[in-house]
Amino acid sequence: MRFLSLALLVAGPLVAAAQPAVDLEPYRPAVERIQTAALADSAAYERMAYIGDVFGHRLSGSASLEAAIDWILDEMRADGLEGVRGMPVMVPTWVRGEESAELVAPVSRPLVMLGLGGSVGTPAGGITADVLVVGSFDELASRAAEAAGRIVLFDVPFTTYGETVRYRSSGAVEAARAGAVAALVRSVGDYSLRTPHTGTMRYEDGVARIPAAAITSEDAALLRRMQERGATPSVRLSMGARTEPDALSRNVVGEIRGRERPEEVVLLACHLDSWDVGQGVVDDAGGCVVAWESVRLLHRLGLRPRRTVRAVLFTNEENGLRGATVYRDSVGADASNHVFAIESDGGAFAPVGVGVTATDEAFEMIRSIEPLIMPHLVESRAAGRGITRGGGGADIGPLMEAGVAGAHLNTDAVRYFWVHHSPADTVDKLNPGDMAKNVAVMATMAYVLAEIPERVPAGPSSPGSE
Amino acid sequence: MRFLSLALLVAGPLVAAAQPAVDLEPYRPAVERIQTAALADSAAYERMAYIGDVFGHRLSGSASLEAAIDWILDEMRADGLEGVRGMPVMVPTWVRGEESAELVAPVSRPLVMLGLGGSVGTPAGGITADVLVVGSFDELASRAAEAAGRIVLFDVPFTTYGETVRYRSSGAVEAARAGAVAALVRSVGDYSLRTPHTGTMRYEDGVARIPAAAITSEDAALLRRMQERGATPSVRLSMGARTEPDALSRNVVGEIRGRERPEEVVLLACHLDSWDVGQGVVDDAGGCVVAWESVRLLHRLGLRPRRTVRAVLFTNEENGLRGATVYRDSVGADASNHVFAIESDGGAFAPVGVGVTATDEAFEMIRSIEPLIMPHLVESRAAGRGITRGGGGADIGPLMEAGVAGAHLNTDAVRYFWVHHSPADTVDKLNPGDMAKNVAVMATMAYVLAEIPERVPAGPSSPGSE
Repeated sequence: MRFLSLALLVAGPLVAAAQPAVDLEPYRPAVERIQTAALADSAAYERMAYIGDVFGHRLSGSASLEAAIDWILDEMRADGLEGVRGMPVMVPTWVRGEESAELVAPVSRPLVMLGLGGSVGTPAGGITADVLVVGSFDELASRAAEAAGRIVLFDVPFTTYGETVRYRSSGAVEAARAGAVAALVRSVGDYSLRTPHTGTMRYEDGVARIPAAAITSEDAALLRRMQERGATPSVRLSMGARTEPDALSRNVVGEIRGRERPEEVVLLACHLDSWDVGQGVVDDAGGCVVAWESVRLLHRLGLRPRRTVRAVLFTNEENGLRGATVYRDSVGADASNHVFAIESDGGAFAPVGVGVTATDEAFEMIRSIEPLIMPHLVESRAAGRGITRGGGGADIGPLMEAGVAGAHLNTDAVRYFWVHHSPADTVDKLNPGDMAKNVAVMATMAYVLAEIPERVPAGPSSPGSE
Repeated sequence: MRFLSLALLVAGPLVAAAQPAVDLEPYRPAVERIQTAALADSAAYERMAYIGDVFGHRLSGSASLEAAIDWILDEMRADGLEGVRGMPVMVPTWVRGEESAELVAPVSRPLVMLGLGGSVGTPAGGITADVLVVGSFDELASRAAEAAGRIVLFDVPFTTYGETVRYRSSGAVEAARAGAVAALVRSVGDYSLRTPHTGTMRYEDGVARIPAAAITSEDAALLRRMQERGATPSVRLSMGARTEPDALSRNVVGEIRGRERPEEVVLLACHLDSWDVGQGVVDDAGGCVVAWESVRLLHRLGLRPRRTVRAVLFTNEENGLRGATVYRDSVGADASNHVFAIESDGGAFAPVGVGVTATDEAFEMIRSIEPLIMPHLVESRAAGRGITRGGGGADIGPLMEAGVAGAHLNTDAVRYFWVHHSPADTVDKLNPGDMAKNVAVMATMAYVLAEIPERVPAGPSSPGSE
């Protein structure tokens, strides 16, 4: 998952228009079958584990991503899904290469690091320079004179992902403006067992492109303490990172065509690409399997709703969003036929609810479904329980900007940023029971919104909806 | 901290003899000064951080351990402590060397590993063999025919340290008996972010000495899933581990001599050696600084109790207990002059209480002090709050076997085994406030037991006391 910044707010009524509540009675029998079947099944977990174990992590441009896509396409066809296809997407290819960092003064000590996605490499032999530790962009600005020729370390404690990730995204640009030769950032995560976290960074035209890497919070704290004691830590950073020509990848699509209005689509979204560490299952193979299994479950139960229910396993969410763009472009003017899009990209932990960004009218209609999913939702400080205002996903962002009602499947993600983009994003962090509940919730939402006679209204989201 | 297995139980009365409670009033003024001063001070944290940052981890036989000892001896003398000395101890020297492990089939994947302390290395080029994953010694016994020529992986979930660590200690012996060529063990810890944990292992005469290493719980689970899917995982294990000749190390001693009975000693214990990963501060530089600061605090306040209060920072707790043995031998028949020994080796987290192993009479006397420390104790599921039955320490074990009343400073150690013996045992896991409270509690116990006219009675611990 990346930080979402959707600019969807427009003027509109502050009070939701009164909507006739959806009468849920006609859907209860099918929903009960869906949920009973979902909860009796561990296929979601098993497929997630298979993807993580057999293909491993799946960075855009990697052979492992394409091998996983091939396998999923085969499985979807074997499942009997319709419209199974790989939608071609040209994706960036960033290659990490060999990399290491070590403290060379005032003591010699290896540092645990991960280069940031998109970074350039260092010259052969690496860069050795004194380190300036700062706690914010403001502090860098006030000490800019000290930064020239140095490696700048942004040692910023985690507050929220949105606040903290700015140092990962823009640290290299800001450090380079001050004349630094490389940028290090304390890993963006809220607990660490010497855990490095990678993620994208960006360069800016006209600003020197310097190498950028994350180190663990433990090692960042070590360098800070050394600086506070009056020492000047010196680090040798070596990175073989490089960007190669774009490669061909695919969005994976599988669906059940609507029996009455096949052109109208309820979209279940996730992303199959991951960072090149760990197994990329919390972020986000687990979410993909939830979307895929939700469609498979409707098919297995012989349910063919009025509208099309389509799973799209997007490619290149992590470092380009090319899959999202290609999909949006592929539907063209028909984006208005997407009646609802829900993404699972916060870790397939126990479900907590569904966060919706939509018009007031659409929100009220979607919220009517809450009683059907409530029994499977847990309390969590990660998100509000039930169907709440605000949410979406990076991959469905372009559709939402076009007015499609969007949502996120919220989960008990209190440990999400412990593992996100790190070697600890592994199969064992998820479990069969919670994943089955995610399928129950997503399949219920999909079924009802694809089946009810009236469609979810499109349009710019209402204020307060994010 | 190692697993303690003290055989101290002897026959004795099941009901504690009624003891006259210690009258605490005479000690309250000094105790108030001690606690106020302790809580106003962050010196314990700062010294712990200095040891971790400047010297790093400190395995027996390493230059870093001896450098830390030199620095502490100098600081103790500068502090004005008495009897500051390094007590020579010959310690084992195990050297990790270069090491790595990788899954080579059914897919290729690096594994995160740490060789176990005491293990032999592999031949140059490593050992490549199929893996047999078992969940217990019983399962190994039942599948012994499959183990020959293989690497046996003990994939045992953490229950208690004592239960689980048997696979780390004895896994190589049991695997070798079945004809295995190497042993892997799932790291002994109760949460993992791809965190490997090392620790001692042992060989047995007459059983082949095969290399032994820990892998992360994530990687152990991966191999297990592959085996459950019908594949046979194959691993290449390469370890440069070797044992070199014993080296000279030292127990660090610093004290305040008793004003009336200098020959009677209240001993504050910990161990300064660590495993060769992380910074070795949770286990156990933090405990050492607590013991050291407790003595320094009494000195700084001009308090000279009736008996000697002595801090001993033991060497070689982790892989030999040679420091404990040498100290015990050094006091000879005078062990009976040690009136009380308390060890801090469970992480200097917020204090929860003091666990005591002693005669009933001694326990009741020690427990009288509880009201003085209670305000600084927190509730925790890690241990009972207050002064409770059962506890001790590996370094004071030989003294306790000689009849000395022993105790452990219990803390809110719910994350102790998340970091224990791992690269994540780092300075940031502790904090100044909690460490200061540890000093307040230990210094209070030390002061009162060194000051009260009657000594804590010696003798075999009473039943129920562990």
